[in-house]
Amino acid sequence: MGIVVVGSLAFDNIKTPFGEVKNALGGSALYFSTAASFFNSVSIVAVVGSDFNFDEIKFLEDKNVNLKNISVKAGDTFRWKGYYDFNLNEAHTLETHLNVFADFKPELTEDILDEDYLFLANIDPELQLSVIQQMKNPGFIAADTMNYWIDNKKDKVAEVFTKVDAVTINEAEIRQFTGEFNLKVAAKKILDLGVEYVIIKRGEYGVLMIDKYQRVFFTPAYLLETIFDPTGAGDTFAGGMIGYLSTRENIENDLRKSIVYGSVMASYDVENFSIKRLKELSASDIEKRYNHFISYCELGIKNV
Amino acid sequence: MGIVVVGSLAFDNIKTPFGEVKNALGGSALYFSTAASFFNSVSIVAVVGSDFNFDEIKFLEDKNVNLKNISVKAGDTFRWKGYYDFNLNEAHTLETHLNVFADFKPELTEDILDEDYLFLANIDPELQLSVIQQMKNPGFIAADTMNYWIDNKKDKVAEVFTKVDAVTINEAEIRQFTGEFNLKVAAKKILDLGVEYVIIKRGEYGVLMIDKYQRVFFTPAYLLETIFDPTGAGDTFAGGMIGYLSTRENIENDLRKSIVYGSVMASYDVENFSIKRLKELSASDIEKRYNHFISYCELGIKNV
Repeated sequence: MGIVVVGSLAFDNIKTPFGEVKNALGGSALYFSTAASFFNSVSIVAVVGSDFNFDEIKFLEDKNVNLKNISVKAGDTFRWKGYYDFNLNEAHTLETHLNVFADFKPELTEDILDEDYLFLANIDPELQLSVIQQMKNPGFIAADTMNYWIDNKKDKVAEVFTKVDAVTINEAEIRQFTGEFNLKVAAKKILDLGVEYVIIKRGEYGVLMIDKYQRVFFTPAYLLETIFDPTGAGDTFAGGMIGYLSTRENIENDLRKSIVYGSVMASYDVENFSIKRLKELSASDIEKRYNHFISYCELGIKNV
Repeated sequence: MGIVVVGSLAFDNIKTPFGEVKNALGGSALYFSTAASFFNSVSIVAVVGSDFNFDEIKFLEDKNVNLKNISVKAGDTFRWKGYYDFNLNEAHTLETHLNVFADFKPELTEDILDEDYLFLANIDPELQLSVIQQMKNPGFIAADTMNYWIDNKKDKVAEVFTKVDAVTINEAEIRQFTGEFNLKVAAKKILDLGVEYVIIKRGEYGVLMIDKYQRVFFTPAYLLETIFDPTGAGDTFAGGMIGYLSTRENIENDLRKSIVYGSVMASYDVENFSIKRLKELSASDIEKRYNHFISYCELGIKNV
């Protein structure tokens, strides 16, 4: 069974201490599906404007990504302009233009309605709810969000959370959503909405997962000498995580390994702008870094 | 073989979002030795003023801590006044009074000169060098420092680092000392001084260790619902780490476990002001949290 992702396709203008790109291909659905495509088939639900050139994402089709649920509307594709300083954990937004996303109402094609895995990337929560309603009965749904929607549609974000198995959320955003600084207490508030797994993204400090039994799992971030651009790391993480998970039989047993795979993919994402580094990866690159990654937490020494 | 620590005994005035204490017993040597005393015998090298009441540290003697190298000088004991806001990772110093520490010249008693483990807590690097010179041939030396000494005596801090096996240092301080934001690159610069293990303390984000072979080990921080006061967490960490390590035969094999024991002790420290929580611990409390702690990084699920 494959994966459905609803999220954005975008053009990004990004400046980091290490370089700058303009009109780079971006968006949560792009990062997610590129990462997930190494593990399973993915269908993207999104909208683009008439300025979008499908040749740019032709490589996704070659990697078993279904592009049929990408609508093309008159107008411009979603655009984001932002920058990072040396604290790469924090994106500074300069401009956000929703453009064709402003009044997007997705209508999913029949063939993807019974897919088993659904990722609701950071996007208007009403749009996330509409996709949940259309899907038949996905076995695993994860949702992300961001400060913009918590500020403007907090009730709808909470409604999404009552309908999903996992929430992936930034450290600052879970504090904002719950009004709790302490992450253990904040996670409990999300779990109380019926979520089974709260997955807190902490940028260069890794990922913290707390499940409904209050069990904790922790993954550091892979230690890189050069981080070029953190844009898309969270969605790439989710793509690697859900991609791997969707190939396994038991979510509870395999979620921890999936989180490590997600972290591996995110670590590759940040090594270059846009999806440049992700595109050139091989399965053995992923396995190699996975093995290196797990050695970070082993009590015995391992040379990898 | 036992442990020698040179560091401060102090009176602290501390305010956190959760409470306030005045004239609380503190200082790096106090936190270190309290934590290490659960594992091995410790000798404290320090100086106090005539205002210091030894009854307050009588409990240390009962726990096999040698107090004979604590000098008493005319004047006042070292005092620190500071506060924390909700970001408990960052201490804000309001006042530092070195007092009797200002011209302390330690002279170690003969009986501790051949101890095998030495911890140079955050203190004037010239004083750290003097203790290294007096000791006969310790098998393992670790040193800490802080921004104050990096600002004022950076050359001496570097000289200390050339003479030690391990450096324990805060994330912000290793960036300051090396002028490198990237931690992997920064760690290399410290390793190049001849250090074998660079142990970077990241507060609520845990501990990152990089060894001379560029092998990485990572420990998260224990997830607590209430953190009362982070003062002393770094020294308590070092005390637990070196305490456990000093009971083992092979440093390379057991340093990783030692770092987890250090993290366990630090997690208890922050649950109350001063050493209140540490004083009441039992060996089984430590083992229980150690086991819980290692479950945080296990790929399989474990109920603890």
